[in-house]
Amino acid sequence: MRPSERLADVLRPVTLETKVNRYAEGSCLVTFGHTKVLVTASLDEGVPPFLRGKGQGWVTAEYGMLPRATHTRGRREAAQGKQSGRTQEIQRLIGRSMRAVVDLKALGERQISIDCDVLQADGGTRTAAITGAWVALRLATRYMLDEGLITKDPILDQVAAISCGVFEGVPVLDLEYEEDSNAEADANFVLTGSGDIVEIQATGEKRGFTRAEFETLFDLARKGIGELVELQKAAVG
Amino acid sequence: MRPSERLADVLRPVTLETKVNRYAEGSCLVTFGHTKVLVTASLDEGVPPFLRGKGQGWVTAEYGMLPRATHTRGRREAAQGKQSGRTQEIQRLIGRSMRAVVDLKALGERQISIDCDVLQADGGTRTAAITGAWVALRLATRYMLDEGLITKDPILDQVAAISCGVFEGVPVLDLEYEEDSNAEADANFVLTGSGDIVEIQATGEKRGFTRAEFETLFDLARKGIGELVELQKAAVG
Amino acid sequence: MRPSERLADVLRPVTLETKVNRYAEGSCLVTFGHTKVLVTASLDEGVPPFLRGKGQGWVTAEYGMLPRATHTRGRREAAQGKQSGRTQEIQRLIGRSMRAVVDLKALGERQISIDCDVLQADGGTRTAAITGAWVALRLATRYMLDEGLITKDPILDQVAAISCGVFEGVPVLDLEYEEDSNAEADANFVLTGSGDIVEIQATGEKRGFTRAEFETLFDLARKGIGELVELQKAAVG
Amino acid sequence: MRPSERLADVLRPVTLETKVNRYAEGSCLVTFGHTKVLVTASLDEGVPPFLRGKGQGWVTAEYGMLPRATHTRGRREAAQGKQSGRTQEIQRLIGRSMRAVVDLKALGERQISIDCDVLQADGGTRTAAITGAWVALRLATRYMLDEGLITKDPILDQVAAISCGVFEGVPVLDLEYEEDSNAEADANFVLTGSGDIVEIQATGEKRGFTRAEFETLFDLARKGIGELVELQKAAVG
Amino acid sequence: MRPSERLADVLRPVTLETKVNRYAEGSCLVTFGHTKVLVTASLDEGVPPFLRGKGQGWVTAEYGMLPRATHTRGRREAAQGKQSGRTQEIQRLIGRSMRAVVDLKALGERQISIDCDVLQADGGTRTAAITGAWVALRLATRYMLDEGLITKDPILDQVAAISCGVFEGVPVLDLEYEEDSNAEADANFVLTGSGDIVEIQATGEKRGFTRAEFETLFDLARKGIGELVELQKAAVG
Amino acid sequence: MRPSERLADVLRPVTLETKVNRYAEGSCLVTFGHTKVLVTASLDEGVPPFLRGKGQGWVTAEYGMLPRATHTRGRREAAQGKQSGRTQEIQRLIGRSMRAVVDLKALGERQISIDCDVLQADGGTRTAAITGAWVALRLATRYMLDEGLITKDPILDQVAAISCGVFEGVPVLDLEYEEDSNAEADANFVLTGSGDIVEIQATGEKRGFTRAEFETLFDLARKGIGELVELQKAAVG
Repeated sequence: MRPSERLADVLRPVTLETKVNRYAEGSCLVTFGHTKVLVTASLDEGVPPFLRGKGQGWVTAEYGMLPRATHTRGRREAAQGKQSGRTQEIQRLIGRSMRAVVDLKALGERQISIDCDVLQADGGTRTAAITGAWVALRLATRYMLDEGLITKDPILDQVAAISCGVFEGVPVLDLEYEEDSNAEADANFVLTGSGDIVEIQATGEKRGFTRAEFETLFDLARKGIGELVELQKAAVG
Repeated sequence: MRPSERLADVLRPVTLETKVNRYAEGSCLVTFGHTKVLVTASLDEGVPPFLRGKGQGWVTAEYGMLPRATHTRGRREAAQGKQSGRTQEIQRLIGRSMRAVVDLKALGERQISIDCDVLQADGGTRTAAITGAWVALRLATRYMLDEGLITKDPILDQVAAISCGVFEGVPVLDLEYEEDSNAEADANFVLTGSGDIVEIQATGEKRGFTRAEFETLFDLARKGIGELVELQKAAVG
Repeated sequence: MRPSERLADVLRPVTLETKVNRYAEGSCLVTFGHTKVLVTASLDEGVPPFLRGKGQGWVTAEYGMLPRATHTRGRREAAQGKQSGRTQEIQRLIGRSMRAVVDLKALGERQISIDCDVLQADGGTRTAAITGAWVALRLATRYMLDEGLITKDPILDQVAAISCGVFEGVPVLDLEYEEDSNAEADANFVLTGSGDIVEIQATGEKRGFTRAEFETLFDLARKGIGELVELQKAAVG
Repeated sequence: MRPSERLADVLRPVTLETKVNRYAEGSCLVTFGHTKVLVTASLDEGVPPFLRGKGQGWVTAEYGMLPRATHTRGRREAAQGKQSGRTQEIQRLIGRSMRAVVDLKALGERQISIDCDVLQADGGTRTAAITGAWVALRLATRYMLDEGLITKDPILDQVAAISCGVFEGVPVLDLEYEEDSNAEADANFVLTGSGDIVEIQATGEKRGFTRAEFETLFDLARKGIGELVELQKAAVG
Repeated sequence: MRPSERLADVLRPVTLETKVNRYAEGSCLVTFGHTKVLVTASLDEGVPPFLRGKGQGWVTAEYGMLPRATHTRGRREAAQGKQSGRTQEIQRLIGRSMRAVVDLKALGERQISIDCDVLQADGGTRTAAITGAWVALRLATRYMLDEGLITKDPILDQVAAISCGVFEGVPVLDLEYEEDSNAEADANFVLTGSGDIVEIQATGEKRGFTRAEFETLFDLARKGIGELVELQKAAVG
Repeated sequence: MRPSERLADVLRPVTLETKVNRYAEGSCLVTFGHTKVLVTASLDEGVPPFLRGKGQGWVTAEYGMLPRATHTRGRREAAQGKQSGRTQEIQRLIGRSMRAVVDLKALGERQISIDCDVLQADGGTRTAAITGAWVALRLATRYMLDEGLITKDPILDQVAAISCGVFEGVPVLDLEYEEDSNAEADANFVLTGSGDIVEIQATGEKRGFTRAEFETLFDLARKGIGELVELQKAAVG
């Protein structure tokens, strides 16, 4: 039995609230159960130096956790003077995931910066962030179309993410913290709306795991992401 | 006429929502109009090195702004590798303000860390943070009393804060961003529930200002803080 | 009785020695009793990026303390790799105070950098720094006028600063370290030559303090700053 | 046709030279074609703070690239003052991969630090590093057994890694730089000697990729890692 | 002809003023012409971690330059967040030079920190710093003897330093800035009171220089240091 | 008797292997006994900001040590976030030594970056690095000539380096670690092919040393560098 009494293939309640920031071109407060991530998409004219003059745009992401997002207070990264390896790993993943479904040329020489700040964490913050980031990105690009900044829709597909893992020997969908911290193996799947693979990160936490287990996790992820994709559609109208 | 059409001595709508974080010993989401600050109070056993063995506790504060809390996206301090001078100035102010109304000996050798994270900014983030921080601190110390960690209430008084300024020649209460960025002078007042001065920071932004103007600002602040203190009382029950 | 046997409204001996650095466009060694601050004003062609092309200049300040300026040796900020929050707070204050009395447009696109380095500290380093900084700034702008770099005097008024505080229940002027570290409340006042308020920073160190006490401190400050303004006049000839 | 004229399922020439450092408890110079990584395993008495007194050891890894390991010189991370997100991601991966096959309790309260320094890079540096790291770790733990520091062999299994990717529409094994930088998708597989999954990191670089493509990459990886595991066995004798 | 019209073997006017800081156990304001360095020696109980429990003390040094010590303002190292390579090189040299003439065991487990801050620079700041540092160190150790903290004098010998160089083809003693920045070669000599070599750093700035030239510089240095040693003796009484 | 049984004036076996990096314009693996340093010379179009538009080039150097280059593992500088004072001192020395024998104007506005990474250390890493750096620099400039990037050879002379020291009272050539860490005095000599002095750094480690001892060390160095210069010639063909 899972701590939340969910069945193995059931997501936590997921909400995607839009327009939660009055300044950002796109924004979304995403919750997966007790996990809450505030996402904003900010449009900047101009691109990073390595892209100047290349006639294309860029999408990048930053990730942070409020110090008391977790059971015990963590140190504030700004006060420590650097972002942890975990933070950098996650924000790089979010950025790659968004760029996989964006036609960068259609953006023109502009950058969209996605900020994902975890207000409360209960497992799955990176997958919630990706799922909400697509919503914020969709709204920001719609703003660009509406304002006439661009004429071609740069969004090629949806993208969403979910974690799966082997908990007490059973493959389960959408790990919450108590499961995540005790899982024998876990995997984060980032898939497009059409089901293609954007990114898979699978780790045997306590032991190596078998290919058969991995395939079961993959099946769970496809089911979960199918549901997330519908929720995204509803959120962006 | 003020941009918000408020009279000179009228606060923006203020809300103090408590228990907004499921892990923190005390928490408060404070809004002053469009300014929103999420405050948590976290209890740690132990004190900083300079207090070890002195039989007293400590209260400290950290402050941060989400990158898109503002009209244009600011750089993330964690990514830049340091907190700005402004950030440090504000978090030092919040910490001093809380310590002014806490009996540190009554805490025992424990630290309460107040985190104030600005989700959206429209002027007055430091005064909103102080006002909400007291609520979070009150809840955290009540938790300590309820759990039997301490037996004597360490809270000596309430503390709240408000900004005032001279906008288009008129002294006004509770500046929003549009006023703040054009004020000729502004002042932040931190007062106790009984009306004593904890901290005053007054600055002539565009010109020096007269003592008479300063006294008018002080009167406005006392009125505003009187109202905030009542709202705090209601919030903590 | 004050440790120095001064009356409540008496300044320490103050000296303002000019031309103490052979390279700087303006310089001043300021002493308030045992507090000694070496101030230089350095002229640079060009302004910071945020002002480029705006047809105005800038005045900025940096502050530092030699490691053994104090009773016990402090750590060298350059070796620690960052400036403390206190240092940043003070240097921001000095910069704002100078800009309050300078016509930045009259400088042209030039920056004056004020460096305030504390050789020995006995309380009141920030107020001594401000008082001396004005002298160095006055000399540097006179140099600019003499050299024909500018034709209009950019100095609009004098500015000086003093600390006051409540020590053993008595409001006193110009706190030295022994008083400062035991004061119940203290306040730094930065006023123009004509008596207007540039900046007030008042803090209840051990308790909140009353408005009546604050008004007495303000009166002391005006008296003290009146004397400092005369000394500045004499120093710049 | 691949740039190297290899068939799709053929590894580059791989060498694992041991005892290349006269001080380290274990060492290995691993080459995959033109990719060369120098790996040392260093034994330290003591464990990181979070493990003290828990009766177990730790294995950690650090990764670096010499500035001119690549076609154009990169900046030295020590001179820049921080490790890139990519570096941190890779060294965290190497550490997890090693810990997956080590009985940490059998180490006692000791740490083995694996240093992987890339002397020359031509794609696949992280997989070469993992493959060589196991060899260095095996030698260091054998040293511990030989010296009588431990009595039970802490190595539970072998671990090796390889990259695969879709290059010009064809799934291929062991990408070199020219392939890697143009791959439509790539995946790094870390498997145990018995074929279980330790870690999978798969990324659609230019487009999402299908599950069928992923399964083909997985098959290639198992073949390649099978060969690497034999080479490791030969290297450690 | 030298810019200062000095003969080749003549020092600039040198002064060593003691007790210039009211807190430091030893202090000295040293001037070599227009070069002015403020030196303090601070006694701390305790030693750095690598010496704990070894029954000996330590002498260390830090060096800094005020931003406007030079013709054009340099950046403040504390603001930049790190000490330059030049600064570190110099402070390491000062520390080694002092330790060469101190019996570290006689200090007990105590550290003396020498701070050398350049108020004004006109060439030769490191050699002035060393010469003044010995004076401050002598006074600090005398304080320790006087206070009964130690019973055996830890000072084994004097140490002083001077620069020499080849300027316009002529070997000269004690380079000032104008000579230093145009010298074909220069050398810093640190010698004991008895004439032994503590440290030599010789550099061909514009060309290699011959052994014969080097020997002439060495002779000049011995003469100059002989004079400095007498001035040190007079300064410490 | 020296630990290696070498006579006092005998170098360790020295090798200079070229073309050890397939990307660098020049490269050399230099060994002095067990000391191994990998050197690359990398050509960049463009010069540092302080030289732009001056019609000359630049040669700079960076130095690093792999963490387990030494008997006990040292901390990785990239992970610590800064280069030690020792590292900076050495890389500044290498850069100056190379520039002493290069006609910077003949390079055009280009920079050559020399990277010296110590794979294994047994004393004398800086002198090995300098000796190998010249070889890499020679190859890189020959590449520039061959490619027609420049027409005039910028190399004015050879440069090589060796350490000498007083070990157990006897002046000896080319200290290995065991000697170096116990030497009473040591000196690093950097000389040109024609025997002129580029740099001398001499330090009394345990005591001051006499001028006579210094002269003996100088004689040893000239002998050793004479041999190194021949090896360099052979290496570059």
